[in-house]
Amino acid sequence: MPEFFKVVTPEQVFEALAGFSRLAVETVPLDHALGRVCGADTASPEDLPPLPRATMDGFAVRAADTFGASDSIPAFLDVAGAVAMGRLPSVDIGRNQAAAIPTGGFLPKGADAVVMVEYTAPAGEGAIEVTRPVTAGENVLGTAEDAACGEAVIPAGKRLLPQDIGLLAGLGITEVLVYRRPRAAVISTGDEIVPVTAAPPPGRIRDINAHSIAALVRSSGGEAEMFDSVPDDPAQLRAALERALGSADVVALSGGSSVGERDHMVSVVASLPGAVVHAHGIALSPGKPTLIASVGGKPVFGLPGHPVSALVVAQVFLAPFIRYLAGEALKHGPTGARVRAVLAASVHSAQGREEYVRVKIEEGQGQISARPVFGKSGMLSTLVKADGFVVVPIHAEGIPAGEIVDVILF
Amino acid sequence: MPEFFKVVTPEQVFEALAGFSRLAVETVPLDHALGRVCGADTASPEDLPPLPRATMDGFAVRAADTFGASDSIPAFLDVAGAVAMGRLPSVDIGRNQAAAIPTGGFLPKGADAVVMVEYTAPAGEGAIEVTRPVTAGENVLGTAEDAACGEAVIPAGKRLLPQDIGLLAGLGITEVLVYRRPRAAVISTGDEIVPVTAAPPPGRIRDINAHSIAALVRSSGGEAEMFDSVPDDPAQLRAALERALGSADVVALSGGSSVGERDHMVSVVASLPGAVVHAHGIALSPGKPTLIASVGGKPVFGLPGHPVSALVVAQVFLAPFIRYLAGEALKHGPTGARVRAVLAASVHSAQGREEYVRVKIEEGQGQISARPVFGKSGMLSTLVKADGFVVVPIHAEGIPAGEIVDVILF
Repeated sequence: MPEFFKVVTPEQVFEALAGFSRLAVETVPLDHALGRVCGADTASPEDLPPLPRATMDGFAVRAADTFGASDSIPAFLDVAGAVAMGRLPSVDIGRNQAAAIPTGGFLPKGADAVVMVEYTAPAGEGAIEVTRPVTAGENVLGTAEDAACGEAVIPAGKRLLPQDIGLLAGLGITEVLVYRRPRAAVISTGDEIVPVTAAPPPGRIRDINAHSIAALVRSSGGEAEMFDSVPDDPAQLRAALERALGSADVVALSGGSSVGERDHMVSVVASLPGAVVHAHGIALSPGKPTLIASVGGKPVFGLPGHPVSALVVAQVFLAPFIRYLAGEALKHGPTGARVRAVLAASVHSAQGREEYVRVKIEEGQGQISARPVFGKSGMLSTLVKADGFVVVPIHAEGIPAGEIVDVILF
Repeated sequence: MPEFFKVVTPEQVFEALAGFSRLAVETVPLDHALGRVCGADTASPEDLPPLPRATMDGFAVRAADTFGASDSIPAFLDVAGAVAMGRLPSVDIGRNQAAAIPTGGFLPKGADAVVMVEYTAPAGEGAIEVTRPVTAGENVLGTAEDAACGEAVIPAGKRLLPQDIGLLAGLGITEVLVYRRPRAAVISTGDEIVPVTAAPPPGRIRDINAHSIAALVRSSGGEAEMFDSVPDDPAQLRAALERALGSADVVALSGGSSVGERDHMVSVVASLPGAVVHAHGIALSPGKPTLIASVGGKPVFGLPGHPVSALVVAQVFLAPFIRYLAGEALKHGPTGARVRAVLAASVHSAQGREEYVRVKIEEGQGQISARPVFGKSGMLSTLVKADGFVVVPIHAEGIPAGEIVDVILF
């Protein structure tokens, strides 16, 4: 009987994955940089703001002139003018003077603070009263306070958010150095597979994995190329694999990594020049029959053929690996957000393997619960009905109901 | 002194937003449906699987024949044949017979369970011994067990995940009814604004908001069209607004919603035919000077001009609203994942407004802490350095250090 020849733990898989190189960097226009990962520390080319600006509507003043101001004893200031948007102020502020200023206006010379309009009132022709003191710098964004010329504003490895795009825009950075987007070749194997557009003849089924794995690659920030499915034939598998390795950064096969007679995948992958098998069999459920290899330095995932196992393994290893290739730190496990919940029913697990239990989140009575989704582990609908995973650690026999668990959300 | 004429609470804004209609639905190919929101309950057009299939490598058996099997007293079965992938089994299973079957193979007639290969051993020519009993249905996915013909498999309003794409593929559903992707027109206003590609003359600044707000729209699943910025001129603003309303599902202006003399936005919006002002001023910090209106039934957001305020308001209201237009339930507040943390320093807030405090997540000593980001509220870099928000409720004066808080992650 054939055997898995290199069963490893999930942690050992992550160690192997961390050995692959990240992708190269490229320059993209600012408005295509959202969600991409910064390829280098980005330094500010200038001061932002270049000169002090108001952060509130009100009056630019010398803070010292408002000292002790209150409703009962307001400070009286002469209005020397008004600051217009779009040009530097023409007015200077002297002692006991003020200038009307809108949010974003540049501060007139002499002024060092802004009194909010709410704390002022007209006091006759060309004068105001101020009913609260301000300190120097109050309601003002000082020169270079947001970003100083030369300062590192966005670190390498950060996935760019809307606020990062905004700061880069403010600094006039219209092109951004980011990691290249990983390209994954997705290939289903098996004599039983027909395209999703076909009506399967008896004994055959549609290609689920190409679509679900490609979707997972895309939701992880990668590009996916779906290959036609390959029958259980070593020569055809080898040809498809060579073509995929020629164009893709990572190859995700599914099917044929088990130990049955039809499973040529391991021998075909291992026979390619420069092939190294990092794992054949992972102590994981669902998903044991998984191959992790490299061919000429390129990563090859041999996912299980079973759609649930294939997708779970891809969520645990491929999704964080795609993000790693694209410049992020390698996260050990699924990349989704976490939420703490009370486990609503006990789950059991065989010791010696990490178990991914599908759960549904239930909220009520001020408590978040995680209820294991009923159904056989092979049902894809259990993944569809679930909101996330609870992980039973490799050396545990299970988790009792009532325990606080971390749910990894899809 | 001009006043905000309709200051409302954030909850009142969400009530107004819930009054807008969702967008229409459209049909897209399966491989473009990831991340889109299902526009109708999707019923399965067939049974999945169409006939029982093995979920493990092993032997198809009659469960009754394995009753009581153990290492010491194994059950001996004759191997009647093997199931090949890609066609229906040609072999039938009779009493005390078995057939080799790979994962995914269709069960031969007569068999009702699969014994995992690990619990079998060869027992001479054409026979095996089975060392563990199986129950009927074990390691088998029965007819229609994953999806029964006519069963609702994916509900309307669900944002499609890789597993949903997989299930739809398995059912042969190659086109999916989804909500249309919202189109947002993004327009910055103000005499001081220059394009991001320009070197700003003294007194002017680059257009931050168009880029950050467009990025937020895109990260919420919408399409953003960035307009050229519009100076503080009612006629030009009106012209841009009319053009935007002609093509977009939602208009996001920024700047000019404050109460200064240059702020024509409210009067221009209110003067358009069919205009209703839902909010002018929101009890929120940062972000009070915000306009929420509808013009002929189309939503118009008048965001503050200040980049921090504009982006915070957009995260709180526009991001969940874009997802609502696209078919999801309207979430009240930013759409990011939540994490519980210990507040590392006290935060103060004026009563009567909801305050969005930027915090950085720190992990250590088995504890997750949320540390308020130091810096003036007007600094865009505080948003860049933060990992998320802590919300001080509208009627609270602050939150003391050491409290457990929910951090809304970016």
